[in-house]
Amino acid sequence: MTRIHNFNAGPAALPLEVIEQAQAELPSLGGLGMSVMEISHRSKEFQAIVDSAEAGLRRLMKIPEDYDILFLQGGASHQFAMMPMNLRRPGKSADYVDTGSWSNKALKEAQLTGAVNIAWSGKADNYTRMPKQDELKLRPDAEYVHICSNETIGGIRWNKFPKVETPLFVDMSSDILSREIDVAQFDMIYAGAQKNLGPSGLAVIILKKGLADRAPENTPVFFRYLTHIKDGSLYNTPNTWAIYLLDLICKWLEARGGAEAMEKINEKKAAALYGVIDSSGFWNSPVEIESRSIMNVVWRLGSEDLEAQFISEAKKAGMVGLKGHRSVGGIRASIYNAVSLESVEALAGFMKEFEKKNG
Amino acid sequence: MTRIHNFNAGPAALPLEVIEQAQAELPSLGGLGMSVMEISHRSKEFQAIVDSAEAGLRRLMKIPEDYDILFLQGGASHQFAMMPMNLRRPGKSADYVDTGSWSNKALKEAQLTGAVNIAWSGKADNYTRMPKQDELKLRPDAEYVHICSNETIGGIRWNKFPKVETPLFVDMSSDILSREIDVAQFDMIYAGAQKNLGPSGLAVIILKKGLADRAPENTPVFFRYLTHIKDGSLYNTPNTWAIYLLDLICKWLEARGGAEAMEKINEKKAAALYGVIDSSGFWNSPVEIESRSIMNVVWRLGSEDLEAQFISEAKKAGMVGLKGHRSVGGIRASIYNAVSLESVEALAGFMKEFEKKNG
Repeated sequence: MTRIHNFNAGPAALPLEVIEQAQAELPSLGGLGMSVMEISHRSKEFQAIVDSAEAGLRRLMKIPEDYDILFLQGGASHQFAMMPMNLRRPGKSADYVDTGSWSNKALKEAQLTGAVNIAWSGKADNYTRMPKQDELKLRPDAEYVHICSNETIGGIRWNKFPKVETPLFVDMSSDILSREIDVAQFDMIYAGAQKNLGPSGLAVIILKKGLADRAPENTPVFFRYLTHIKDGSLYNTPNTWAIYLLDLICKWLEARGGAEAMEKINEKKAAALYGVIDSSGFWNSPVEIESRSIMNVVWRLGSEDLEAQFISEAKKAGMVGLKGHRSVGGIRASIYNAVSLESVEALAGFMKEFEKKNG
Repeated sequence: MTRIHNFNAGPAALPLEVIEQAQAELPSLGGLGMSVMEISHRSKEFQAIVDSAEAGLRRLMKIPEDYDILFLQGGASHQFAMMPMNLRRPGKSADYVDTGSWSNKALKEAQLTGAVNIAWSGKADNYTRMPKQDELKLRPDAEYVHICSNETIGGIRWNKFPKVETPLFVDMSSDILSREIDVAQFDMIYAGAQKNLGPSGLAVIILKKGLADRAPENTPVFFRYLTHIKDGSLYNTPNTWAIYLLDLICKWLEARGGAEAMEKINEKKAAALYGVIDSSGFWNSPVEIESRSIMNVVWRLGSEDLEAQFISEAKKAGMVGLKGHRSVGGIRASIYNAVSLESVEALAGFMKEFEKKNG
């Protein structure tokens, strides 16, 4: 079975070893005579999977004990609505840093139901860089500051996270576990799983204990963090398949040295592509060097025709997912943890060949 | 690979043929070189899957064109909150019929955010029957009447649905596609997938066109039906794996004659169990005969010890998931579409043997 070089932005490549284990266990998980999708979410077998996934994530990210870990459905977009509903008390305001499509979507959702202060916006610069610390117009009475650690579409990331006085919340969907981070600097980390953690249909929420008490009493039960904290993510039937895969991915990551090892490989992968991009005027990166993402590498060629040709020939060479997001165009290679160095080197090699022929 | 007789209430048995196809297609879907979990939800390949799932469901349930079909995350519990938020306008009330755990959970969620009229409650009877038409205290100005077609825990179902003057909404999680129904009598049908439609992590919503316009303007974008209708369930990344499996299950059902054929087999399966239960005083059904579910058959034995012995010996005989819900105890066999007649006959046979030895 031939596997392709997969540079999709999300849903994205999964580790082949994980896919193969899931495949082997599909008709019968551990001799149960049922797949993981056919066992009760209240069974001891599934509880063991949830516990293992949570413990794995806690070890991998060194998450302190005073943070709850939740596995909820709906992805990050669900969190855009649930977060202000629970954590920005009525009459209060939250700071949002507008660094691209995703943080902008989060802030627009928050604006609909309460007060938002836009602490900085990169819109005028076409979202090509992250702000400097002293550019942020933060409010001392903000309920929280919201940032997006890595903008998938713009291809930019916070190299160093800002220092703030109020609780710092971060959408880490596209770079969670791609690098070592200090969890303690955040009060909330959340991430849709479909880039670095597993399949779509799952979000991981890492929430400092106590914060969830902020939710007003008329918040729907299902939309309260407290509900899911109390029931250990099993208030209702969770996405059992996705939690199972997340658990396998945590094991896969631990076996490979965790976030520290991943960061080294990811830096190397990104450098392989940026190296080609910077090597000649044939390629052009719109992104400020300091803000360059190591997960989503974006670049342009001389014309849209040439870009279309590049994407088409890459596909013929077994490399897919390279078309930039429809809102910005250009080329984008998403090189999450599950995308191997070999795949990235193949792409870098292809780029050099393409330049030779068309430069 | 030995498969077990799976009577789980949900997540529940899936058709082996579907599991095997998913297994075969895991490392590479249709020669793409990626699994379905690794392709973009905006790719033409995934759009074809969504379109096929929707068309399959429309054919199987004969859903008229003036209904939208949505595939959302969060299951039925998510709908308990989303439904009144969107479809009960501010200051207005909705009728809820309280027939068991699930309808009760729906009405409690609705009570939190607005006015609810409990049109009937079976609580005093321990939820052992559905109401008669003339027992319902409906309000002419209700925004909708909410019912649960089949109560998984109590093991009761609406044999004939009530006739009402206001829009009728139904939670059909545990018996959708188990029998032929006339969709046109409802204005909203919703169902968590993990019983009759696929794995957990997905809800199907069938909504009469126009209703979604009721949502107040300050409803969070993500929690509006309109958002998902406009974007064909692709506003954000959906649970792609579950939609893929739902599509396979629709094809599996169509190949077997659809809801009409399933209803006949399901009636036969249920009759095999109720036949044993009614054959002697050794077994006892708490449920009114007219309200008996054909999806979740519940019964009691003479003592809790005997029930525990039954469950334990059944497990040794390769039959799992028979323990009644923790809130009511007893025995429950969930016999959804994917549970074969052979499995049910094996259980009926085991019951007769058990009675012989312990009666």
